[in-house]
Amino acid sequence: MAEDSDRATRLEAMYTDMAAHSLEGLWRMERKGPDVRPYLWQWDTVLRAVTAAGEFVDIPYPGERRAVALVNPGIPGALGSTHAIYTAIQLVRPGEVARAHRHMPNALRFMIEGAGVSTTVEGERVPMYAGDLVLTPNMLWHEHRNDSDADAVWLDGLDSPLVFGLAAAVYEPFEDGFLTETRPEDHSGRSYGLGTVRPIGYEAPAKGSPLLVYRWTAVEPAIQRMAEDGADTEFDGVSIEYVNPGNGGHTLSTMSCWMTMLRPGEHTKAHRHTYSSVYHVHRGKGSTIIDGQRFEWAERDSFVVPPWTWHEHVNASDSDIAYLFSINDIPTLEAFNLNREEPLTENGGHQQATSVFDPENPN
Amino acid sequence: MAEDSDRATRLEAMYTDMAAHSLEGLWRMERKGPDVRPYLWQWDTVLRAVTAAGEFVDIPYPGERRAVALVNPGIPGALGSTHAIYTAIQLVRPGEVARAHRHMPNALRFMIEGAGVSTTVEGERVPMYAGDLVLTPNMLWHEHRNDSDADAVWLDGLDSPLVFGLAAAVYEPFEDGFLTETRPEDHSGRSYGLGTVRPIGYEAPAKGSPLLVYRWTAVEPAIQRMAEDGADTEFDGVSIEYVNPGNGGHTLSTMSCWMTMLRPGEHTKAHRHTYSSVYHVHRGKGSTIIDGQRFEWAERDSFVVPPWTWHEHVNASDSDIAYLFSINDIPTLEAFNLNREEPLTENGGHQQATSVFDPENPN
Amino acid sequence: MAEDSDRATRLEAMYTDMAAHSLEGLWRMERKGPDVRPYLWQWDTVLRAVTAAGEFVDIPYPGERRAVALVNPGIPGALGSTHAIYTAIQLVRPGEVARAHRHMPNALRFMIEGAGVSTTVEGERVPMYAGDLVLTPNMLWHEHRNDSDADAVWLDGLDSPLVFGLAAAVYEPFEDGFLTETRPEDHSGRSYGLGTVRPIGYEAPAKGSPLLVYRWTAVEPAIQRMAEDGADTEFDGVSIEYVNPGNGGHTLSTMSCWMTMLRPGEHTKAHRHTYSSVYHVHRGKGSTIIDGQRFEWAERDSFVVPPWTWHEHVNASDSDIAYLFSINDIPTLEAFNLNREEPLTENGGHQQATSVFDPENPN
Amino acid sequence: MAEDSDRATRLEAMYTDMAAHSLEGLWRMERKGPDVRPYLWQWDTVLRAVTAAGEFVDIPYPGERRAVALVNPGIPGALGSTHAIYTAIQLVRPGEVARAHRHMPNALRFMIEGAGVSTTVEGERVPMYAGDLVLTPNMLWHEHRNDSDADAVWLDGLDSPLVFGLAAAVYEPFEDGFLTETRPEDHSGRSYGLGTVRPIGYEAPAKGSPLLVYRWTAVEPAIQRMAEDGADTEFDGVSIEYVNPGNGGHTLSTMSCWMTMLRPGEHTKAHRHTYSSVYHVHRGKGSTIIDGQRFEWAERDSFVVPPWTWHEHVNASDSDIAYLFSINDIPTLEAFNLNREEPLTENGGHQQATSVFDPENPN
Repeated sequence: MAEDSDRATRLEAMYTDMAAHSLEGLWRMERKGPDVRPYLWQWDTVLRAVTAAGEFVDIPYPGERRAVALVNPGIPGALGSTHAIYTAIQLVRPGEVARAHRHMPNALRFMIEGAGVSTTVEGERVPMYAGDLVLTPNMLWHEHRNDSDADAVWLDGLDSPLVFGLAAAVYEPFEDGFLTETRPEDHSGRSYGLGTVRPIGYEAPAKGSPLLVYRWTAVEPAIQRMAEDGADTEFDGVSIEYVNPGNGGHTLSTMSCWMTMLRPGEHTKAHRHTYSSVYHVHRGKGSTIIDGQRFEWAERDSFVVPPWTWHEHVNASDSDIAYLFSINDIPTLEAFNLNREEPLTENGGHQQATSVFDPENPN
Repeated sequence: MAEDSDRATRLEAMYTDMAAHSLEGLWRMERKGPDVRPYLWQWDTVLRAVTAAGEFVDIPYPGERRAVALVNPGIPGALGSTHAIYTAIQLVRPGEVARAHRHMPNALRFMIEGAGVSTTVEGERVPMYAGDLVLTPNMLWHEHRNDSDADAVWLDGLDSPLVFGLAAAVYEPFEDGFLTETRPEDHSGRSYGLGTVRPIGYEAPAKGSPLLVYRWTAVEPAIQRMAEDGADTEFDGVSIEYVNPGNGGHTLSTMSCWMTMLRPGEHTKAHRHTYSSVYHVHRGKGSTIIDGQRFEWAERDSFVVPPWTWHEHVNASDSDIAYLFSINDIPTLEAFNLNREEPLTENGGHQQATSVFDPENPN
Repeated sequence: MAEDSDRATRLEAMYTDMAAHSLEGLWRMERKGPDVRPYLWQWDTVLRAVTAAGEFVDIPYPGERRAVALVNPGIPGALGSTHAIYTAIQLVRPGEVARAHRHMPNALRFMIEGAGVSTTVEGERVPMYAGDLVLTPNMLWHEHRNDSDADAVWLDGLDSPLVFGLAAAVYEPFEDGFLTETRPEDHSGRSYGLGTVRPIGYEAPAKGSPLLVYRWTAVEPAIQRMAEDGADTEFDGVSIEYVNPGNGGHTLSTMSCWMTMLRPGEHTKAHRHTYSSVYHVHRGKGSTIIDGQRFEWAERDSFVVPPWTWHEHVNASDSDIAYLFSINDIPTLEAFNLNREEPLTENGGHQQATSVFDPENPN
Repeated sequence: MAEDSDRATRLEAMYTDMAAHSLEGLWRMERKGPDVRPYLWQWDTVLRAVTAAGEFVDIPYPGERRAVALVNPGIPGALGSTHAIYTAIQLVRPGEVARAHRHMPNALRFMIEGAGVSTTVEGERVPMYAGDLVLTPNMLWHEHRNDSDADAVWLDGLDSPLVFGLAAAVYEPFEDGFLTETRPEDHSGRSYGLGTVRPIGYEAPAKGSPLLVYRWTAVEPAIQRMAEDGADTEFDGVSIEYVNPGNGGHTLSTMSCWMTMLRPGEHTKAHRHTYSSVYHVHRGKGSTIIDGQRFEWAERDSFVVPPWTWHEHVNASDSDIAYLFSINDIPTLEAFNLNREEPLTENGGHQQATSVFDPENPN
């Protein structure tokens, strides 16, 4: 008894001693990964927020900051849609501009609405149309502007949770405010957009892509050709990856972008993997079942598939194709040999959906 | 005197001894590279030969063997247009076929005339149209056939002089005669022809390209966009390289293919380099000055720029674009760090053409 | 006034709406990287804790779990010495064993004390001696055992904060408890320890090293030869990197290990960089000035240089060499182009040390 | 009849026409690879020649040119021991020097006899001892000198047949005659000789190795450790490759060097492959059966295994190890996917030796 008591006292003293010196016993450590949760943001809700922001919020440079971030509720401190990927919906009004800047995170935009708004990257103006994917690889100077007379809306995607997590984030405003256009408009798209030929003398940029924009007008027919050829997959319908034509690698060093086509009525099989994905519904409506919960989506909604969660997609229409644009962190995991994947084997590869996610009562 | 004589005798004895034992003195060795000569083959001449071959020569399988090789006169034993590159003009008549086979040399065809003739590679039928570039990377099974009712003519390009020189050539006929079509027609072109997207799950083939065909209908507008953007070079007009979209590398592991556009009236500057090129005039007429000799070319002619010879191109037309397709051995030299290049600095970068090559009296 | 009040009300309503739907305004987001702090753990303190653990704590498998983690006080939740690197001091008593297991994090041990204790990796027993570096790359089965009759103490290093942060951690115990020895003892060291030759037929493992151990008996003379040749650097004395002999790359895919020699009396210049380092004093005594604060170290102490902090090293002895072993996350940053470095230019490259870190009153 | 005659006439006219225009019919082309023959040079014969050369031949710079090349009798024009590899035996007398130069071919020396003779490469003096391998990668300035008072003899190995064959050879003498020593003696060996550590800040040279010398005193024990661990192969005894520690690749971009240990009495199995090898007997005596012919070798003999010839090695001693140094062109073939290999399956993997090569009557 006395011994036990003595032991307890000494144990407590030891823990006090350790705590005072920033030590912790491995035997009582409980490590956990980030609590990334499945979630869905409905377009109406997001649009309402970003529109209201235009009316009630004083933002000195609205073209720079009027974006509404899709923040995963399980990891609010990460300020990301997953632990690795930030996404937001940004509204740029006619005449608005964002001053030039650069940063360590890689960024991309998927254009939702608008015509002829542009991003200028390192002296090249890139016009943006609905369905286009525009890249601003890390540390390239870039600015945005809406010279059209219609609102523009796009999806921002950044690897900022990763880069901030690695303590390597840097943000630099461009001293002169705006970039000078030194190259022809849409130059990279015109030079590298057909990724099978390129000007001689080409030398690949270290980790980045020579191509800044992927046009939906070229991508959609490419997917349709593959669909005609039967390029269906078990888990992801007919999916293409946007490729760096400079080295045949992923879209960016940290993130890969995909476009997934689900045929009318298609219901994929379920699997899970260590990478996470943020989906944006480009066209169509349907649902994705994630760990037994059904997330119903329609055009322009966004949703998250967390790491290592079972998931399968359903196109709810019997007549129309659905297109899902997505961003994942496969390149990050591949860099360190951390990719793992597993098919659901029971029940014919399909989950039982036991509940439906309610965007109005998400918890 | 006696001493000298003695010395001479002993020297001779020594050389005899050495020769008998396959030894040679470094002090009397004279090493030389291959004597590759500039040369030009006129289309009429080549066509006359390949047509005559169809009439007078008994060839068991004309679809396989009715090709006329462009043999560099300086290195007849190499059976190549240069020491590294073999080219030939092949005529395939309606109904003719070449049985399936594979070989260690990489091969390519540049389609000159015909519509709908096809090459089948590993179970995929690839239709060929004028201006298309079709690849058969090393050791892939392939066969050719002309199911159309018109003659087809193409340029063959192989790295056979290199592969034979490395004592690594292998040729294998396909046991069953002809391949079974196991993939959709034109599958690789439909899947990888837009080199900036591709089906997910793609894994690059070891050294080869996933793409078997580059369509002129896509390549020509790409070059024209680059030309509009001012992608002019000092020595090669506006030139594109056909790229392996799987890894962003050269067309093939041993050879790179280019298409060079010369603007109306364009006259490039002269340079020289360690790689050699075989040119085929896709469109237009003009001349190339090689080491002071002018080689005048017109559509469908072929000519050789040997290693380390000064050369510059002239488009003779003031109104029409000229297109030169070419094959070079840059990838081979790069593999061993052997590439070197030098601009002509004197005389404003231009040579004095002191003679004109006469194809009817080539020597 | 009424308008203002109305506006405020609507603004608040908007923020409530957003919060209810996991949305956040970019205009009010404040992103921060991890608050990694400089810190120093004195050997006596750590040893006291790990020894006490052996006496008062009931640990079912002491050989597996009796490790005291050096936890950075700025980021307690990360359970790492920095945001990217976990280190701990582990004590293994005679006769103790750790059952075989494998995990997604890469692990390494730097041997502090003991002779002949061993780690068995994938069927190969690797004896460990003071100063040796032993690797267990990710997902390789491994176990530890102390068959000697003396205590063994080592430093553990893992990339667990990164791998957990990427939600990719997996831990698997080996079903049969212990591995069977299928290869000769010390086989990888004997085969690849002289990194300039290797058995023919070698094919590099995908991301890992063929070498499991770097012997101090070989490393120390190598450093001394470099020191004799004057391989001094401005910021890091004479430093070597432990290299993957399979591909010439860093020690592991996520972490690089260094040994730094400071000459008697040496005082390096200051710089800062985006990577972080955990140092372990292998020999000698001195101090490191980090952002103006002096951290005094002696043999077996450990300390942290956080990302982007100015730091310079001082060997306090006029007669003896100091050796600092360190682990950094350079490979992780390089994978994404996130490495940046800056020399201190003012004051001759030296900081003013305005305070001294007190390990007994660290805050 | 008349028709036949007419046909023959026209055929002949066609061939005349073709020949006049450097055209050849594929249907009558017979392509062949180089006729590389197995051969063996006995040491006494070679030494006699190189010694005689010192007496009877006037060579302005004997230190540069007194080498006797081992020329394959099947391809005399290639001036190589195989179609890809040149070897020679060079004798450097006390006091002799070779002025500094550089060239496109890669070169290596395997030191046979002498102590303290040196090669200076780019300002670093590399002393050479028996059994050492010294590299001079392409286009590095180098010179040789014998400051000792004993004769030095080494084996030269170059890829000159390949580089000349690719028309890319360049030779440049150093203007100032001799190099200035700017780095410590043996610096690369001291810095990179333990290939598992290296100075921080290292950046790999493009295609070359940071290491200029592999010491026999380090290599021999490494092979013996592997032999103790049972690293025997079916066809090549216990063999090591000399590795580029900068990237884990082959010895040089074009050639790989091996050291093969044959245990007392060992008789390997036969195989054939597309690469060729030049062997130099470092120690021991035995024989190699090549395509059924036995080549008996003793210390310092050299012999050739041509591409695609069956071969197996026999150590004739029951008590002593044999060491065979060899140079092959594996890296060249791998660059283009041209490597193929085949085991002999019949007769237990062994050939019938039906004849013995007689070096005195080689034909």
